[in-house]
Amino acid sequence: MLSMLRPTPIVPTVDFDRDGAQHGFLRLPYSRDDSAWGSVMIPICVIRNGTGPTALLTGGNHGDEYEGPLALFELARTLDPKDVSGTVIIVPAMNYPAFQAGTRTSPIDRGNMNRAFPGRPDGTVTEKIADYFQRELLPRANIVLDFHSGGRTLDFLPFCAAHILPDKTQEEKAFAAVEAFSAPYSMKMLEIDAVGMYDTAAEDLGKVFVTTELGGGGTSRAHTVRVARRGVMNVLRHAGIVAGEVETTPTQWLDMPSGDCFSFAEEGGMVETLVDLGDPVKEGDVVACIHATSRTGQAPQEIRAKMTGILTARHFPGLIKAGDCAAVIAVEV
Amino acid sequence: MLSMLRPTPIVPTVDFDRDGAQHGFLRLPYSRDDSAWGSVMIPICVIRNGTGPTALLTGGNHGDEYEGPLALFELARTLDPKDVSGTVIIVPAMNYPAFQAGTRTSPIDRGNMNRAFPGRPDGTVTEKIADYFQRELLPRANIVLDFHSGGRTLDFLPFCAAHILPDKTQEEKAFAAVEAFSAPYSMKMLEIDAVGMYDTAAEDLGKVFVTTELGGGGTSRAHTVRVARRGVMNVLRHAGIVAGEVETTPTQWLDMPSGDCFSFAEEGGMVETLVDLGDPVKEGDVVACIHATSRTGQAPQEIRAKMTGILTARHFPGLIKAGDCAAVIAVEV
Amino acid sequence: MLSMLRPTPIVPTVDFDRDGAQHGFLRLPYSRDDSAWGSVMIPICVIRNGTGPTALLTGGNHGDEYEGPLALFELARTLDPKDVSGTVIIVPAMNYPAFQAGTRTSPIDRGNMNRAFPGRPDGTVTEKIADYFQRELLPRANIVLDFHSGGRTLDFLPFCAAHILPDKTQEEKAFAAVEAFSAPYSMKMLEIDAVGMYDTAAEDLGKVFVTTELGGGGTSRAHTVRVARRGVMNVLRHAGIVAGEVETTPTQWLDMPSGDCFSFAEEGGMVETLVDLGDPVKEGDVVACIHATSRTGQAPQEIRAKMTGILTARHFPGLIKAGDCAAVIAVEV
Amino acid sequence: MLSMLRPTPIVPTVDFDRDGAQHGFLRLPYSRDDSAWGSVMIPICVIRNGTGPTALLTGGNHGDEYEGPLALFELARTLDPKDVSGTVIIVPAMNYPAFQAGTRTSPIDRGNMNRAFPGRPDGTVTEKIADYFQRELLPRANIVLDFHSGGRTLDFLPFCAAHILPDKTQEEKAFAAVEAFSAPYSMKMLEIDAVGMYDTAAEDLGKVFVTTELGGGGTSRAHTVRVARRGVMNVLRHAGIVAGEVETTPTQWLDMPSGDCFSFAEEGGMVETLVDLGDPVKEGDVVACIHATSRTGQAPQEIRAKMTGILTARHFPGLIKAGDCAAVIAVEV
Amino acid sequence: MLSMLRPTPIVPTVDFDRDGAQHGFLRLPYSRDDSAWGSVMIPICVIRNGTGPTALLTGGNHGDEYEGPLALFELARTLDPKDVSGTVIIVPAMNYPAFQAGTRTSPIDRGNMNRAFPGRPDGTVTEKIADYFQRELLPRANIVLDFHSGGRTLDFLPFCAAHILPDKTQEEKAFAAVEAFSAPYSMKMLEIDAVGMYDTAAEDLGKVFVTTELGGGGTSRAHTVRVARRGVMNVLRHAGIVAGEVETTPTQWLDMPSGDCFSFAEEGGMVETLVDLGDPVKEGDVVACIHATSRTGQAPQEIRAKMTGILTARHFPGLIKAGDCAAVIAVEV
Amino acid sequence: MLSMLRPTPIVPTVDFDRDGAQHGFLRLPYSRDDSAWGSVMIPICVIRNGTGPTALLTGGNHGDEYEGPLALFELARTLDPKDVSGTVIIVPAMNYPAFQAGTRTSPIDRGNMNRAFPGRPDGTVTEKIADYFQRELLPRANIVLDFHSGGRTLDFLPFCAAHILPDKTQEEKAFAAVEAFSAPYSMKMLEIDAVGMYDTAAEDLGKVFVTTELGGGGTSRAHTVRVARRGVMNVLRHAGIVAGEVETTPTQWLDMPSGDCFSFAEEGGMVETLVDLGDPVKEGDVVACIHATSRTGQAPQEIRAKMTGILTARHFPGLIKAGDCAAVIAVEV
Repeated sequence: MLSMLRPTPIVPTVDFDRDGAQHGFLRLPYSRDDSAWGSVMIPICVIRNGTGPTALLTGGNHGDEYEGPLALFELARTLDPKDVSGTVIIVPAMNYPAFQAGTRTSPIDRGNMNRAFPGRPDGTVTEKIADYFQRELLPRANIVLDFHSGGRTLDFLPFCAAHILPDKTQEEKAFAAVEAFSAPYSMKMLEIDAVGMYDTAAEDLGKVFVTTELGGGGTSRAHTVRVARRGVMNVLRHAGIVAGEVETTPTQWLDMPSGDCFSFAEEGGMVETLVDLGDPVKEGDVVACIHATSRTGQAPQEIRAKMTGILTARHFPGLIKAGDCAAVIAVEV
Repeated sequence: MLSMLRPTPIVPTVDFDRDGAQHGFLRLPYSRDDSAWGSVMIPICVIRNGTGPTALLTGGNHGDEYEGPLALFELARTLDPKDVSGTVIIVPAMNYPAFQAGTRTSPIDRGNMNRAFPGRPDGTVTEKIADYFQRELLPRANIVLDFHSGGRTLDFLPFCAAHILPDKTQEEKAFAAVEAFSAPYSMKMLEIDAVGMYDTAAEDLGKVFVTTELGGGGTSRAHTVRVARRGVMNVLRHAGIVAGEVETTPTQWLDMPSGDCFSFAEEGGMVETLVDLGDPVKEGDVVACIHATSRTGQAPQEIRAKMTGILTARHFPGLIKAGDCAAVIAVEV
Repeated sequence: MLSMLRPTPIVPTVDFDRDGAQHGFLRLPYSRDDSAWGSVMIPICVIRNGTGPTALLTGGNHGDEYEGPLALFELARTLDPKDVSGTVIIVPAMNYPAFQAGTRTSPIDRGNMNRAFPGRPDGTVTEKIADYFQRELLPRANIVLDFHSGGRTLDFLPFCAAHILPDKTQEEKAFAAVEAFSAPYSMKMLEIDAVGMYDTAAEDLGKVFVTTELGGGGTSRAHTVRVARRGVMNVLRHAGIVAGEVETTPTQWLDMPSGDCFSFAEEGGMVETLVDLGDPVKEGDVVACIHATSRTGQAPQEIRAKMTGILTARHFPGLIKAGDCAAVIAVEV
Repeated sequence: MLSMLRPTPIVPTVDFDRDGAQHGFLRLPYSRDDSAWGSVMIPICVIRNGTGPTALLTGGNHGDEYEGPLALFELARTLDPKDVSGTVIIVPAMNYPAFQAGTRTSPIDRGNMNRAFPGRPDGTVTEKIADYFQRELLPRANIVLDFHSGGRTLDFLPFCAAHILPDKTQEEKAFAAVEAFSAPYSMKMLEIDAVGMYDTAAEDLGKVFVTTELGGGGTSRAHTVRVARRGVMNVLRHAGIVAGEVETTPTQWLDMPSGDCFSFAEEGGMVETLVDLGDPVKEGDVVACIHATSRTGQAPQEIRAKMTGILTARHFPGLIKAGDCAAVIAVEV
Repeated sequence: MLSMLRPTPIVPTVDFDRDGAQHGFLRLPYSRDDSAWGSVMIPICVIRNGTGPTALLTGGNHGDEYEGPLALFELARTLDPKDVSGTVIIVPAMNYPAFQAGTRTSPIDRGNMNRAFPGRPDGTVTEKIADYFQRELLPRANIVLDFHSGGRTLDFLPFCAAHILPDKTQEEKAFAAVEAFSAPYSMKMLEIDAVGMYDTAAEDLGKVFVTTELGGGGTSRAHTVRVARRGVMNVLRHAGIVAGEVETTPTQWLDMPSGDCFSFAEEGGMVETLVDLGDPVKEGDVVACIHATSRTGQAPQEIRAKMTGILTARHFPGLIKAGDCAAVIAVEV
Repeated sequence: MLSMLRPTPIVPTVDFDRDGAQHGFLRLPYSRDDSAWGSVMIPICVIRNGTGPTALLTGGNHGDEYEGPLALFELARTLDPKDVSGTVIIVPAMNYPAFQAGTRTSPIDRGNMNRAFPGRPDGTVTEKIADYFQRELLPRANIVLDFHSGGRTLDFLPFCAAHILPDKTQEEKAFAAVEAFSAPYSMKMLEIDAVGMYDTAAEDLGKVFVTTELGGGGTSRAHTVRVARRGVMNVLRHAGIVAGEVETTPTQWLDMPSGDCFSFAEEGGMVETLVDLGDPVKEGDVVACIHATSRTGQAPQEIRAKMTGILTARHFPGLIKAGDCAAVIAVEV
């Protein structure tokens, strides 16, 4: 059915089949009030040396997550084609308009890139980018690494992850890549609602797909950036694209066995997380309080853990709204 | 000269001279398009027992800093008048419109409360609040504790601080209160440009004034909230308003000897802080890089430390603009 | 065809098959810049006692209409399950984001709930809510009462209404429920363009569907709220869900026989309605004037009645734009 | 001191000393991004016949109040200079930018015209208009009539009013003009905080000053517009500028004896006014409820009358914020 | 397939089959927060005399282009039905909401009218207008003239144009009409990506379609307006709808042979076009510079011509963004 | 009196007394929601060689005028200190926040730099910049050249200008510098309302002050940029700071003898200028028409010339508002 679609309007200024390091753009025409003949210029780097496997490396799927872009802009600048066997395609900021704005979604169409797949060549800007990955970039890849962090509104323990998949061979390859990444934590994820995700798009095409959550809050830390940089090199080594041994460090595997991992706020207010990330939590503990702020003297709403584990993610901003996820607990395995 | 000013338009719904715990409002009439006869309702709590000294405790001077409001809303809810000798006035969110919006400055007039003193009774909403503190609340206080953190755009090592003052008796009392607060770090600050600050307003009236920076990023951590809660109780004990011993813990005193502490970005881009808060830095070290993001393959701008010390504060968001302070270094003393 | 659709993403926190009164939410996951893992929390109340008929009661289909939400929040709070035979499902604010904002349409996607049916499970927030009503709530109902008023931009005589339908048995049941509601006025409506309406969605499923227009201007009056409260109890009694007699009061039936009922402005300006709601109007009378406001001394544009009747609705704000409906006339029958 | 001020930048296109009817503008230069050499063009009409007294008639002091502009645009269009003895100066929309936007305050500078007096010739746009009235128009007038209504956020019983003044002769003249206006209600107002008001500016210059509140909600009704039109003609007859008898109708005098007239909301929510305008209220009655809307099943906050009287004004929109005035009670005298 | 679509919601107030000159509206119902029963009122003029051919004349396809609307509002006002044989349908501002706002796209839905065809009767406002042209207006026409200029962000040499078409008879008729228009320049365009264009919609229905680019910058000049007015009369004469000879003037034919005509900016900054419109350019010449503005002393980015010709269009605003088209070169033929 | 003011908060990163070419910033601390410790970084270049006279060269006084910034960024990049005798201080974009936004006024405070003098060290950002020029830069200068163009909303014939001054020696020096600039046109300006202007601030300090209007529309043309570049070099040669002869070309002197030069619109609409810049106009000619756009068939409002001369400036955008200056006529002398 995809073959019936119009061609993509995106024009790359790089040649995917040329050896060497190229720094260019995916140019996406975008007519708007402040530029009738304007374009979105998404930076792309292709580093190729011969006919080995292809890794597709992406950050900025959400525009307010920085470990990925920091690792990938540096990799693009420093990776020598001589050290490569095959091809490394680097798009450090997939949802480039969102990345420029420092927001999760695109300021142009409020598109959430990770819910926009498979995209449309005649859709919104976000859908056109998704379509280009779906039909042009993913088919070129053997292994796909997509960096995430918590963004401005969530904070995570740093982990690398892959999905539990129906094809156990594919799943095994993905977990092996996660192991190679060597983040402080590693996660096996069971995706309940996978519709529209880049992850699913890649996996449905049979690719080895690895992702991360490496912090959050709309910033990065020196420590988490180091994790990202070591991880991406480890994955390239693991894939045989860069020579050398994977630099392993111990990782703690985590599991999120059910929806009881998640705690949602039922009232808005000022949120206080009573434990920090990585701290142990017992079922029934108060993990967070939501304080009413319209007057003093009111008792806070308590949010209790529905399972025992460690605090793995939390709402980041000091204010919270009804319906926001306040805390996530995972189990050490 | 102040006696010539018009009376404040603010009407308190609490009686500052009544014993017991009162939860009320400072009601500030504010006519606007969506409410011709509206008001700003600033929560205030007065806990009084007899004729001892008065502590004025404030948070939310900047609206995106949470350790103070979290400590003070709880204190207002839990402090028993029977445990008090004197008066505790608690305004957990001074710039209440900013606090409600989760922003540093007021969404009404973009007023920065800490540059609005002494305020004006016929000025903007922010200036009217400042005037009320200047003429009504500060004169009632013996000791003033004003909580700050880094807010959404800065992150700090947790410290309590007071200013170097011309009146050395007043200064000594303030540093004694800082010592009592028992934050992990303590700071002696020399204010270069003190115009408009609440700090200066209090100090000029001869008050013992103590402030903090307890984290940042527009969030709070369980750890820093514990520091804030212990600190405010320690200050009340130190002032003789609450009975009992100050709970001391070790603190590291810091100094910011010159303008060389501050490093500013000269170009905008994606910022990477190469060391984490509390890490040692040597003069000449690269403390931060600013990466151009318009294309791959470009060398980052390096920001080098102008002095040796520890990283004490940093720009928080992943993106930075020209002119933003990227890093602050302080010296351990 | 609907069976091919994805399941709804909405998770109710109430159990529709449990006896008693439950106060909960329809939780609709909504990822956005200010909350990556946020949700819309739509209040819902289920009051059930055994296996009798089910009434589905809704307000806030448009977010700036208040008689319905006022009647339904109170009903949810006060209706005793012991007084019920069957089930009462109450959603006092269908388009909850619009209701929170006080606007006709949703601030999230500008969705007009009453043009969004049958909705889509993978559509906008408004479409997801419509889909939930279409596939989950409407099928449970025997009788449906949806409250409307004029909102911020229209004002109506208070009436209850049902549609002229091809199925005369269904129509007769609906008009009987209108009669039971006992509003000051009652209306037989012929819907010309029924595409996307909740009304049509309910009627196409064979439900008895009753609606109202009970005032407007983005406010409520004590009088119209009393009409709404009496009306909803009357409908529940009429349906046999609550015991007791319908409290009847006289009603005046109205008819809107043709498009000549509506008068539109062809120029913008300051509008003056020359008669008040309920006043008689003769064909050819000037019902409204539009005054140019760019200078004094200019003759107003006159809008004349195209039929004889009473003024039933009018443009509410003092300014009007070209294309706005200025006045509606109905005929007493 | 005023004589030291710079001259006004406003240029009138009418000649105040010429007989006949002139329709022109007060042109106020206003340089802005969308027009470097733009101006605000405030419509003004001067109708003069010989050397009798001068009435200054204004509406649109707040931009969302319509009875005044409707009466005055019509008066400007229809008043024949032959019927005048003296001068009638009509500015139907004082805060013209606010009037064009349909908002209480100016969209240019958020200026509330009735808190901007005496204005400044080098201030904001609103202050420049106020200064022009202060120094150019008020000195020409013998009697001043300024129309108000409740605007979008308040609704009033229709009344004409004047202030209790230290100069009892001036006060008596003003109440005589109120009596002549012949609104359904008449009010004696004691202004507590008169700073910045047009009323005060006129009264301080010794003028007979009359004002009104004639409805509200950001609309007008046929009934209240008739009150306004009759009232302005009555005032002109009373002043001897137009010949003929004042058309009197009965009026009910009201008094607002203390701050207990006003009830403020302490929590936001959905407001329900339990009595309608003009209904009697007894001390202790619940006049309004504020319903929490975040979930069903919660008891509303009740607002009780602090005195016995009739409901004279109320908050208009269906939603209310903490600090908004919910209800005003006045006493019949 | 179009026959399965719902009928258009647009109601015209003109009768296309009535002789004489009619000035009316296409009324498009549009419910929104500030008018529940509002409409978009698109001006339309029909001038008919008997049964000759029909010309459909449009401007304001993009809302910031003025030569077309200026020519067509005047034509509608001045063309005498007696001078017509057949029908002239004039819509001076197709995308009327965009035209009112002075923006390229619609402020309602950001719709680009020239990418919205064939439109949808149940789509956005822009799509509903496109659908009306597609199904109601285009079928009535024999010849279609659609005026464009560069808008606020581009500036063009003034030319009239038609497309190279597969049906050479249709193409020949179109170029004959271009010749008749007699603009200073004439262009043969090969459309690469014609999806969604009004041009394509008309051509696919077999109509003779002529378009223009007559200047730009969001303004008009006396000279280009004269070109537009003469051109439209010439086209009507050429089509036999108005009697008399075409007023010919010399025209220079241009060709845009390949994508090398277009030069795009790869960095944002302050743009300087080194030649003016109509000036000759040689392959390799620097046609534009982009100056970095964050500091002085930096070399500009040079944009060089990829072919020899004349400068035919350019970016208009002083600032440029990465991806904007900076310059267009065409070849004289 | 100025000596009583606080010191400027602006910190320059250049040394005004050092020989050579320096590229730096005026750093103005600016605390805001998105950067608590942010700054505005205004580019400045100082080129000095020994002790000759000082020229202060500025552009971007209004942020949407480009000939000045284009000439001055280039001059800063290319002027060799060896070719200088004295000092050249270049600030290519005075109101740098406005320049970055491409708007006339500052997006921070809507400040119009040319109405902000003498500024305030504790005022808005725009006032702080003005104060720095007033107290720090102007006193260093002997000759001041400030570039203007029409900006986005006006278009001018290209001219250089100086003011008629009470000090005829100062005036003569200024006109000599205008003559040296050698623009196509030269203007003697009599400033009616000079309050707040940079021009006046410089002249009051006794400086030789020269300004320009070199086009407009928010763009630049190759021709006008060449005029600007030649002009600034000519002024430096004329001042003896750069060696060599002034490159003279013929100039036409113009005069604006009275307020009859200016024509203002009294109604908004679509504007058509009937003559182009530089065309002759006779008293009584229609110079512009304003077309109503709400429907077809309406006669335009005509604006007639009040004097004979040439069209010297015009409103630029296609739409116009009441009060906008539509056309300016000057007299050739």
